[in-house]
Amino acid sequence: VKYAVFGTATVGRTIAGRLDELGHEVIMGTRDPEETVSRATQDAYGNPPWSAWSAEHPRVALPMFAEAAGAAEVLVNATSGTASVSVFSALPASSVDGKTIVDIANPLDFSGGMPPALDPVGTDSLGEQLQRAMPSARVVKTLNTMGAHIMVAPATLTGDHTVFVSGDDPAAKVEVAALLEEFGWPSGSIVDVGDITTARGTEMLLPLWLRLWGAFGNADFNFHIQR
Amino acid sequence: VKYAVFGTATVGRTIAGRLDELGHEVIMGTRDPEETVSRATQDAYGNPPWSAWSAEHPRVALPMFAEAAGAAEVLVNATSGTASVSVFSALPASSVDGKTIVDIANPLDFSGGMPPALDPVGTDSLGEQLQRAMPSARVVKTLNTMGAHIMVAPATLTGDHTVFVSGDDPAAKVEVAALLEEFGWPSGSIVDVGDITTARGTEMLLPLWLRLWGAFGNADFNFHIQR
Repeated sequence: VKYAVFGTATVGRTIAGRLDELGHEVIMGTRDPEETVSRATQDAYGNPPWSAWSAEHPRVALPMFAEAAGAAEVLVNATSGTASVSVFSALPASSVDGKTIVDIANPLDFSGGMPPALDPVGTDSLGEQLQRAMPSARVVKTLNTMGAHIMVAPATLTGDHTVFVSGDDPAAKVEVAALLEEFGWPSGSIVDVGDITTARGTEMLLPLWLRLWGAFGNADFNFHIQR
Repeated sequence: VKYAVFGTATVGRTIAGRLDELGHEVIMGTRDPEETVSRATQDAYGNPPWSAWSAEHPRVALPMFAEAAGAAEVLVNATSGTASVSVFSALPASSVDGKTIVDIANPLDFSGGMPPALDPVGTDSLGEQLQRAMPSARVVKTLNTMGAHIMVAPATLTGDHTVFVSGDDPAAKVEVAALLEEFGWPSGSIVDVGDITTARGTEMLLPLWLRLWGAFGNADFNFHIQR
């Protein structure tokens, strides 16, 4: 299997569905597949239950995280940002060794109400936390600064807009850029910000993103770096 | 006098120079005018001494902060972000009462080396600190997300790009938007993000801005919100 997408909410479904549509072998991963599969109701965001999505994507299996990680070449983190470190820290090192981890999550803590707090913020980032938790893996932060529908179909938004890439491993960033181009991103719209510490900066776009979402009343927008 | 610009470094000089060029009455404000005027050397950023700039802008006087505030209708904060709260807190309430404060500063702390830390970050902002320090004034955060040369001449950068506005007072935001249009900002490029708490989000763009500055090797870029 080429890709394992961790997380079964909107972002995970959108990424896995697009990879499937593009003809890639893709599985998903979750903590408790039986529980996810047996859920009959919408989630808190109004998403239909897993079973409805799964019926439309019969090729996408849903094992537990560790099994998904061991079976795949590239892992995609679309878990809740506050759970991501514990999820990836629990994986056997052998299942992530040398693999590219595409980190799309943001460490938003909704426990204090809206707007959510970003934690860590400023002097650390989720991207760095994941890289430290998996020193033998190659973490690339990307796609975390926009709505899920734009991640996999950037042309739905007219004009130029930007996707950022942060990571310590140049080859992993090249691999991720190729995936982004498959999703429809023009190469000129992919901005390599630098090493994984630059994930601090892209994660810190979220507070403004959330306020713009509120001001505009929709998520049909994206950041662009005009040069 | 219509405008008092606080701070004599690049941003303050650029804003005051542009206001002067536009035919507005403008003064600047600083902590110790004699010291600033008598400086003979470049500052840490390679800017020429005040006297050289002043010789080219003979109409722009440089009194102390309190005198400048008392004389002006609108105050512009271009002081160092870590000094701004103490500067404005020291002003007599009567000199800021009901006035619009255009806050361009970012609370970047360079004391720990590069990249600088943002403080406050996440759950507070410099814009909010200033509004709390001057409850009778009307603080509007804007222009803090780009290089000084773009603030006053947005057309130097081709294509669409964005200037954000945050503040609690709608009338003050209308007044600031009119000033931005005088600087050359098309009205469609001015995005009202919301109340002053949204300054958290625009100040949090700075860490990414600084890394992009490093990656590009120049400051000839700006954020744009593509819709």
